[in-house]
Parts: sequence; C-alpha cells; structure tokens
Amino acid sequence: MEPKVSIIMGSTSDLGVMEAAAKILDEFQIPFEINALSAHRTPAEVEVFAKGAKDRGIKVIIAGAGMAAHLPGVIAAMTTLPVIGVPIRASLDGLDALLAIAQMPPGIPVATVAINGAQNAGILAAQMISLGDAEMAEKLVEFKETLKTKIVKANQDLSEVKFKFKTN
Amino acid sequence: MEPKVSIIMGSTSDLGVMEAAAKILDEFQIPFEINALSAHRTPAEVEVFAKGAKDRGIKVIIAGAGMAAHLPGVIAAMTTLPVIGVPIRASLDGLDALLAIAQMPPGIPVATVAINGAQNAGILAAQMISLGDAEMAEKLVEFKETLKTKIVKANQDLSEVKFKFKTN
Amino acid sequence: MEPKVSIIMGSTSDLGVMEAAAKILDEFQIPFEINALSAHRTPAEVEVFAKGAKDRGIKVIIAGAGMAAHLPGVIAAMTTLPVIGVPIRASLDGLDALLAIAQMPPGIPVATVAINGAQNAGILAAQMISLGDAEMAEKLVEFKETLKTKIVKANQDLSEVKFKFKTN
Amino acid sequence: MEPKVSIIMGSTSDLGVMEAAAKILDEFQIPFEINALSAHRTPAEVEVFAKGAKDRGIKVIIAGAGMAAHLPGVIAAMTTLPVIGVPIRASLDGLDALLAIAQMPPGIPVATVAINGAQNAGILAAQMISLGDAEMAEKLVEFKETLKTKIVKANQDLSEVKFKFKTN
Amino acid sequence: MEPKVSIIMGSTSDLGVMEAAAKILDEFQIPFEINALSAHRTPAEVEVFAKGAKDRGIKVIIAGAGMAAHLPGVIAAMTTLPVIGVPIRASLDGLDALLAIAQMPPGIPVATVAINGAQNAGILAAQMISLGDAEMAEKLVEFKETLKTKIVKANQDLSEVKFKFKTN
Amino acid sequence: MEPKVSIIMGSTSDLGVMEAAAKILDEFQIPFEINALSAHRTPAEVEVFAKGAKDRGIKVIIAGAGMAAHLPGVIAAMTTLPVIGVPIRASLDGLDALLAIAQMPPGIPVATVAINGAQNAGILAAQMISLGDAEMAEKLVEFKETLKTKIVKANQDLSEVKFKFKTN
Amino acid sequence: MEPKVSIIMGSTSDLGVMEAAAKILDEFQIPFEINALSAHRTPAEVEVFAKGAKDRGIKVIIAGAGMAAHLPGVIAAMTTLPVIGVPIRASLDGLDALLAIAQMPPGIPVATVAINGAQNAGILAAQMISLGDAEMAEKLVEFKETLKTKIVKANQDLSEVKFKFKTN
Amino acid sequence: MEPKVSIIMGSTSDLGVMEAAAKILDEFQIPFEINALSAHRTPAEVEVFAKGAKDRGIKVIIAGAGMAAHLPGVIAAMTTLPVIGVPIRASLDGLDALLAIAQMPPGIPVATVAINGAQNAGILAAQMISLGDAEMAEKLVEFKETLKTKIVKANQDLSEVKFKFKTN
Repeated sequence: MEPKVSIIMGSTSDLGVMEAAAKILDEFQIPFEINALSAHRTPAEVEVFAKGAKDRGIKVIIAGAGMAAHLPGVIAAMTTLPVIGVPIRASLDGLDALLAIAQMPPGIPVATVAINGAQNAGILAAQMISLGDAEMAEKLVEFKETLKTKIVKANQDLSEVKFKFKTN
Repeated sequence: MEPKVSIIMGSTSDLGVMEAAAKILDEFQIPFEINALSAHRTPAEVEVFAKGAKDRGIKVIIAGAGMAAHLPGVIAAMTTLPVIGVPIRASLDGLDALLAIAQMPPGIPVATVAINGAQNAGILAAQMISLGDAEMAEKLVEFKETLKTKIVKANQDLSEVKFKFKTN
Repeated sequence: MEPKVSIIMGSTSDLGVMEAAAKILDEFQIPFEINALSAHRTPAEVEVFAKGAKDRGIKVIIAGAGMAAHLPGVIAAMTTLPVIGVPIRASLDGLDALLAIAQMPPGIPVATVAINGAQNAGILAAQMISLGDAEMAEKLVEFKETLKTKIVKANQDLSEVKFKFKTN
Repeated sequence: MEPKVSIIMGSTSDLGVMEAAAKILDEFQIPFEINALSAHRTPAEVEVFAKGAKDRGIKVIIAGAGMAAHLPGVIAAMTTLPVIGVPIRASLDGLDALLAIAQMPPGIPVATVAINGAQNAGILAAQMISLGDAEMAEKLVEFKETLKTKIVKANQDLSEVKFKFKTN
Repeated sequence: MEPKVSIIMGSTSDLGVMEAAAKILDEFQIPFEINALSAHRTPAEVEVFAKGAKDRGIKVIIAGAGMAAHLPGVIAAMTTLPVIGVPIRASLDGLDALLAIAQMPPGIPVATVAINGAQNAGILAAQMISLGDAEMAEKLVEFKETLKTKIVKANQDLSEVKFKFKTN
Repeated sequence: MEPKVSIIMGSTSDLGVMEAAAKILDEFQIPFEINALSAHRTPAEVEVFAKGAKDRGIKVIIAGAGMAAHLPGVIAAMTTLPVIGVPIRASLDGLDALLAIAQMPPGIPVATVAINGAQNAGILAAQMISLGDAEMAEKLVEFKETLKTKIVKANQDLSEVKFKFKTN
Repeated sequence: MEPKVSIIMGSTSDLGVMEAAAKILDEFQIPFEINALSAHRTPAEVEVFAKGAKDRGIKVIIAGAGMAAHLPGVIAAMTTLPVIGVPIRASLDGLDALLAIAQMPPGIPVATVAINGAQNAGILAAQMISLGDAEMAEKLVEFKETLKTKIVKANQDLSEVKFKFKTN
Repeated sequence: MEPKVSIIMGSTSDLGVMEAAAKILDEFQIPFEINALSAHRTPAEVEVFAKGAKDRGIKVIIAGAGMAAHLPGVIAAMTTLPVIGVPIRASLDGLDALLAIAQMPPGIPVATVAINGAQNAGILAAQMISLGDAEMAEKLVEFKETLKTKIVKANQDLSEVKFKFKTN
C-alpha cells in the first residue's frame, strides 16, 4: 500500500492536534504516512523529504506547525505538490502560526486551514485526490451527507430542551 | 402558540451560550423556537428556513455561530427579517466570530451583539417586537428597572466590605 | 411628517460616513431626523434625547461614534427603543470603536453593524420598522432584488475582460 | 472622616480586581468610599454621583469596568475631577476594556492604567492628592522606597537558586 | 475549450486583486472562467453555481472576498471540489477576511492563501490539477525555476548598490 | 513665571502631536515648559530631570513617546509626581505605544490617554492642578461648557443638510 | 569563575520562565550570574548594573520582563553590550511585552526572542560569545546536532501510532 | 577586505528598508556584503549560503523579510552564527513578519529587531562584533554619545517654539 498523503509534524506533542487528519484519511481509506520533521531542527531531512515526495507517489502533503510556523512554507518551497498547512495553537492563541503559514509571498502557496484544523486538512487532501479519482469524489459526496446528521442529532437534542415559551 | 423569535445554532454545544437568549425570551413571554442549522453542513435547510421564516410568522431571527461564523450572514442574505448575530467564543477569544458576523458588506446587515452575548440578543429581539406591541414596550421599561436591582444589591454587598479608611 | 428614525452623530465630520444611512432611509421613504449629540460633551442633551425619543414617535435610533465609542451604548441605557451602533473609523482602523460598541454588557444591547457600515444601519432600521409595516416589508423584498443588479453588472464587466485562456 | 477618593465598580464581582485600589488607599491612609454604579444600568445614579462628587469633597474618582467599558468616560463627561479608569479583564483578555477607556475623544480625558491595574489606580490617586498635601508626598517617597524591597527579596531568593555555572 | 478553474468574485472592484489569479492561469495555459457572485446578494445563483460546477468539468474554484468574507465557505458547503479562498483587503487590513475564510469549522475546508494573494491561489489550483496531469506538473517545475530569476535579478541590482564598506 | 507642567518628547517630530497639550495649557493659562528627552538616548538627563522636577515646582509631567514607548514609565519610576503618558502613533497604528505606556506593572502608574491624545493630556494635567486651585477648577467648568458649542455648531451644519425624508 | 552572561529579571516569579536560559548556559558551560532588577522599582540599581557590566567582564545581558516590559530597553540604553530581551507572558498573552521589547526606536537595539523564549536567549548568548571562542562555536555545532534527536525520537513515537491506512 | 556581516534580503524592493543597516555598518567601518536570497524561491542557495557563511569569515547575518517571513529562521536553522531578523512591513502593518521572525521555537533563536528596524540590526551586529574587538567597542561608546545630539538639537528646536505660557 503506497501512501498518497504525507502528514508531517514537528514533535509527538502535535499528534493530539494532527491525528484528526489521520482519522479522516482512514475514513476515506486513503493510505498515508506520518513523519516528524522540523524546518529548524532537521532542515536537511526536510529537503530530502520534500524533494523526494512526488517521486514516491505522494499526492498531497499536510504539515502542521506552531509559533513561527515555517514548516509548511519551507516544504512548499521544495516541491510542486500542493501543501496544506495546519496552524497549531502554541502561543498567542495560534494567531502567530496562522499568519506564518497563510501570509506566504507570491510564488509559493500554502493551502491554509483553521487553527488546529487538522480534520479539514485531511478533507481538503481528499478533495484534491478526488480530482482524478471518481470513487473518492463519491465518498466526499457521502461524507457531506453525514455532516447533516450532526445537525439532525442537535435538533433532536434541542427538541428536548424545555422552556416555557419554547414552541418546538 | 406561534413562535415570534427563532433561535438558531450549529450544535448542541452552543446551547450553553445560546440558552441565555431563550431564558430572557421566556422572561418576556415571547414564544420562540430553537433549531440547529449550519451554513456549512446544511445549506439547503438554512435556505428553506430563512426563506420561510417570515411567512411562518417569525419576526426576528437570532443566530449564534463561532469561528468563521457565516450562519447569521447567510440567513440574512435570504430574508428581509432582522437577523441578530451572536459571536460564539470558540477560538481566538471569539474575535474571529465577531468580525465574521459584524463586518457584513453593504446591503445585508446583521445586528451584532457582544461575544457570547446571547442574553442581549434576546433583549434586542424584544425591543424590535415592542415597536408594534405596547405591552412588550411596557415590559422592557420594567426590565430596565430590574437592571438597577443588581446595582442596589452590589452596593449592599460593598457596604459590608471593610477597609480601615473606607468611609461608607 | 413625523420622523421614525433618528440618526445621531458626534460632529459634522462624521457625516461623510453617516450620510449613507440617510440616503438609504430616503430610498425607503422613511422619515428621519439627524442630530449631533455627544455622550461626553453633551451628556445632558443625550439624556433628554434618549428619554424622549419614544414619546416623539421615534422607532429606531442609529448612533455613529469613533474611538472609545460610548454614544450608542449610553443612549441604549436610557431608552427601550432598539439602538443601532455604527463604529466609525477614527483610529486603530476602527477596531476600538467596534469593540466599544459591540461588547456591551448584559442587559443593554446595541445592534452593531460593520465599521463605517452606516448603509447597513439604515437597512436594519427599515427591517425593524417592517415588522409592523407590510408596505415596508415589500420594499425590502424589492431592495433585495436590486442587490443582484450590482452582480449582474459585475458579470457584464467581467465578460469583457480578456485573458487568453478565459473561456467566458 | 470625609472620603477623598471614590471607587466605583459595576458589580460585586469586580471587587476581586478593584480591592487592590482600596488596599493601597488604606496604606496611604486616604479616606475613600466604594460604590457600585453602572453607566448602562443606572445612568441616572451615575449622573447624580458624578455631578455631586466635587461638592462632597471627592478629589479623585477611580472607576473600573470591563468589556465596552463606558463607566469611566461617562463619569468624566459629568465632572471636572480627574477620573482614573481601570480596564477589567472580562473578555478578549481585557483589550476591549483598555481601548474603551483609553481611546477617549478630545475634551474628556480618562487617566487609564493597566488592565486589572487597580493598585496603580490607587497610587495615581495618591499622587494627585499629594500635589496639595506635603505629607502625602512624603508617604509616596517612602512607598517608592518599599518597592525596592521586593527586588531585594527577589535577589535573596535568586542567590539561593543553584546552577553549576552560576557564579553568584 | 472547457474551463477547469472557476474564479469567483463579488464585484468588478475585486478584479484588481483577483486578476493575478487569471494571469497565472493564462501562464499555465489552464482554461478558466471568471464570474461575479455574492454569498449575500445572490445566494440562489451561488447555489446553482456551486452545485453544478463539478458536472461542468470545473476542477478547482477560486473565490475572493473581503470583510466578513463568506463566499468561499458558502461555496465549499455546496460542492466537493476544492475551494481556494482569497482574503481581500477591504477593512482592518484584511484581517477580518483572513479569519472569515481560514477559520472554517470542521467538515468544510477552504484552502486559504494570503491576504490579496490571488497569484498564489492560481498556482495552488495548478498544483491540484497537476496531480492528474503530468504536463502541468512539468510546467510547475519550470515555473519554480523562474522564481529564482527574480532573485538573480535582485542580486544584480544589489551588486550595483555602492557603500564604502560593501565588499561585493 | 514658574512652570507647573513639564511636557517631554523625544524629538521635534513629535511636536505635531504634542503641541495640542501646549495649546490647551495656554488656554488654561498654566505655565509650562517643553523639553526633549529620551529614555534611550539620554537616560542620564532623564534621571536628572525626573528627580529634580518636584523641587523645581513642577506639578505634573506629560510625556509623549512612540513604538516601545518607555519614556513615561521611566520618568514615573524616578518621581512621585503624577506622569501622564501620550502614546504617539509611529508604527502598528500606535498600539505598541499604547501598550508600552498603559501596561505598567504594579507600583509605578502612568496616567495613559488616547493614541495621539495630547490635548486630553493637557486637560488631565489641569484637572490635577485644579485639586488645589479653585480658580482652575472654575476654568474647567467653563471649558466643559465650551465643548458643547462644537455640538451646537454641528447641529447647525446638519440642519442645512438636505435629504428628501429628513424632517429636521 | 567570572560570569560572562548576566541574567536579569524583575521578580522571583519570573524564574519559572527565565531558568531555561540558565539551564542552557549550564549546558554550554558558560559562567553566568542571575540578579533581580526592575526598570521601575530600582532604576538606580539598573543604572549601576548596566554601566558596570562591561567592565566586570560581562559579554551579553539577558533581560526578561512582562507587560510594559521596559527593562531590556532601559539596560540597552546604558551599555554597549548586546542585550537580549525575553518577553514574559503576564497579560494579553505576552503581546504587550513582545511589542514593548521589540519595537525599540532607532539607535538602541534589543535582540528580542519569542514570548517566554528564555532558552533561545541563552543559545543566542552562546552564539554571540562563540564569535571569539572557537570551542564555544564547536559546542554550538554539537548542540545543533542534538536538536535532531528530538525529531528522531518523535519519529519513533509516531511509528508506533496505528491507523488502518497508515503505511509507515 | 573580507566581509564580517552579511545582509540578506528577498528583493530589491526591500533595499529601501535594509539600506539603513548598510549605512550604519559603513559608519562603524565594518565590511559587509549584500545579497538577495529567498527562503521560498531559492532554498538551495539559502542552504549553500547559510552553511558556508562561517567558513567565509562572516560573523553576523542580518536577514530582512516581510509577510510570512521565514528567511531569518531558515538561515538560523543552518548556521551557528547569530542571525538578526528584520521584520519588513509588507502587510498587516508588519505584525505578520514580526511574529514569523520573533516567535521561533526552542533551539533556533533569531535576534529580532523592530518592524523596519534595519538600523538597529546594524548596531546590534556591531555590538556582537565588539565582544572581541575593543576598537569596535570604543566606536559604540562614541556612537551612543552621538545619539544625544539629536536630543540636544530637538531641545534647541523646541526652545524656539513659542507659546504664551511656555516658560522655557
């Protein structure tokens, strides 16, 4: 089983946030790998990884980082694969990471999702893969349907909440 | 009993914030309904709701949302009823939700209240309803009186606080 | 002709922003008045105004203010009419005014619109008035239709923009 | 014993922050009063208070408020006494209160201290009173001396901290 | 020539920012369309567009919006195609648009680029398309090479700048 | 004529902001001096100034500074006179200066006014001086009256603005 | 053993943050001292310290401070030694301290590290010292190597995390 | 003449900001080089530069960058030389660049100066070099003296400003 998505993070402590990407890829049955890399601590390894990813069959890279979050941008500089950046809340409520990932200069895009938004990173990766994969496209349509069930459940919960002047 | 106000939220977890709107509507004896809808997960249901609200007799819609809080604006785009938006604190201390609700472009207003300010959303709904309802207007005058009691109580509490050079 | 909406601002220099509210009220044929009042410079006049507005037949108050923008909140404290607050950009890009208007404490709501969003304040006032005025409700439906024309016009403009690989 | 300083807050829950002002006034032996007032809930009482403070012998007013913190500015609008504003952290880390107190428009100053900085408000009041009170000025000189003791104590603590290459 | 990318904006005034996406798509020889749509002014047209895009052969949608920028998220709610959001600077230096686009809730990702970063949106679209298009992948490798020329040119410019102690 | 207020700034370029303090002191007929000092460039001179101010008869110090605005706090550390800080807009819209002046630690207050709020600094100085000067207190009452004239003038201007549905 | 680095903080409560600087200096075997000083509480002692540091053989000063963090800048004003500033998180998530340290005016630099980034301050001090100390330069090369081990360890941890579609 | 300082920027357009570093190095007679490099456009060249700088005799690297400013951090990851980062104002008033440079994770410090603070970067480089260069240390003492002349000049200018109640 060849991985199609590569999830990158800087330390095990980021796993609590980044595993949401892994879980949704599992749900979409997309093979993926998880590795630890750091733009600052292992720049050489980042380079080897980024430059080799496409030839290894990787389609999309998901990179999470906090604070002055350089990892997604540094990887994007060394590959033509789409890179999805997940700002991790580590200081300043994650605003520093959001800006350090989203505000990339012209030429090197990073597809930025919400602060700690790793699940959405996984879905976005699936959407990209679905462009050449009709089965995946179908799974995404089904997934979109399931999103409604949370709302249906919420409506059931809310129907049981009692207020004197509540009419429903 | 026909509902006059419709309270909308995205999930049961928002109820902790939004129930303050329900409680104050109860206090004002304004019939209301509570439903879960999501601009992103159930856009079709949002459309049916928003377009039908006026004909069902709804006067005011109160919509709470967090993060990239689109729900109030999306509803406002599909109705001519006044829509009150409640920014819910879910990330960035609620600043993202406040901006995503208040900064609506020209043509589609949302009446924004404070972050987590659901009680004020309920009062604002009552004020709007009172424009054609003298009894409600009277209740609002009485309610304004009761606001003072909190201050009177606070003064009593403070009168019992002892400092050596405190003179009252 | 009795005014139904009262537009309040602190100085003539705010007129450049606040006249958008007047223009849209003109368009909706809602009689209104414009006055200058200051929470800080003429607190007594603010009190006389706020306490008397309802008895003079005013339905909605629109108050614009910049910096530590207290005017909408101070008026809201002295009336049960709905008060719409317009944060005026005067410093810090208007963020100070937005927070000083939107972040009202429980009990005293201000319906806040976008920074410099006076047109939306006028539309919101019309929406509130329409709750007891079927003709106004109809005008709002028509107004909503006209919003599309800007988009239609934009599409015409964009159809004339030429790029080599543009297909439409 | 006539109060020279008046401490104002909106509710008993602010006492945890504002009592630091009371304690330091006690230390300076400056008689003071504490009252609860709200710009929004009891505007009439605020007016009576603010307009009468000078004639009652009050020299300085210290007002604490959170969120859209109007109380200090509203009081300042109705008296020529110096008003010290204490932004109370209630939302957005207190930034909303800081801006709503500090960013007063020309003509009506509020002497703003740090977020939750009630002790400094008390010291500032003492400094103002000392302008016409040589004994108070002397106390302030002594107080400034005591500030150093905290540093002396810290140095003692730090001298006991052991690191291998720590030389002192 | 069937369009593969669809560029959406709210008004002609956004063209100054968004044309950078068109230009880079031209450079990559990717057929595209440009349309004006508004989440708030033409919600029905947005729905028709979003739901039909995939069947019309569109692969990627690029949506630009300012202020409470709902357009990218609202489109993303109604399609399984990847949606790239471009925050447009219209107020608050574009921070409101960045947050309203990036901070999407779980389930509905938007691939956010920098404020006014339309060129990067176009490159990101090309990267996504390249996943199933080896020729496009090759073009991206070439494009990456051209990025260096700007630096080469800058170095030439800088070599001509004279300072007394400049050694190169 | 002995100066009672000392205005301090870091360079002539700050005069455009700080002269508003001088003008209002002129209006109140309070003798004052203006000097340039820098917490960073002339720390020794700051010390001589701050330690000697009280003995020279100075009652209040007004210090303006931008960026990492240390001057007001550094002066406050070396005197028991009240120090009024004026944050000067030089970068980040003045937010850096506001925080660097207002957020003083416990023990050393600075009475902070609005960004570029030098006029209010002058008025606040007059209020402090008025505590022991009945004539000055009287002037402040008169000054407060004049604030209304701006509003009266604004109302006259606004009465001449014509809209079709404007009733006043 | 003569100290080469001097660590300064305002109180024992800062030790929890600042000890990371001490630990890394220990690791680099650089002799250092730790003292408590306050720009506001002990300005005279700060002056004696700052002016004498170079003659005592100190090479680099590391100063930590929170809120309106003046200490690093005030020391930098009185020495030609490089001063490293550590913004300590005490309010506003540390943003106030970051701005009050980094935004120094021209002429007086402070080498600012991340909020609570005391370890990096220690490393930066070692880098400065290494400019004239080949052995220290070698230690830094070795230290850089050890940074990778954290990543190696993270990869081992991650290799043990199991997901159904995880391929590594 | 071997360069001791290396100034790096991403494009010629940054020269307007970064030349202040060059000018002050000229003033200190420190040989330096200026090159254009981009963390994102020329990562391979950045690596060659960063890894070779020390062996070429470079003592300090000054790197300026805007937006998601990765250049200083990426260089710091590949050298043990001290790296000074200059946040360049390109969007969001430079706040994004300040955070992307200052908020480096543990292990890889960047000595951050103020937004657009290139002159201070040059002075800081001189301070670092002076640790092993007594002559440079002397020049810095002289430079500190010259800082006062700006204040002396400002005082002369201010002495000529006339106000009625100005006493000096």
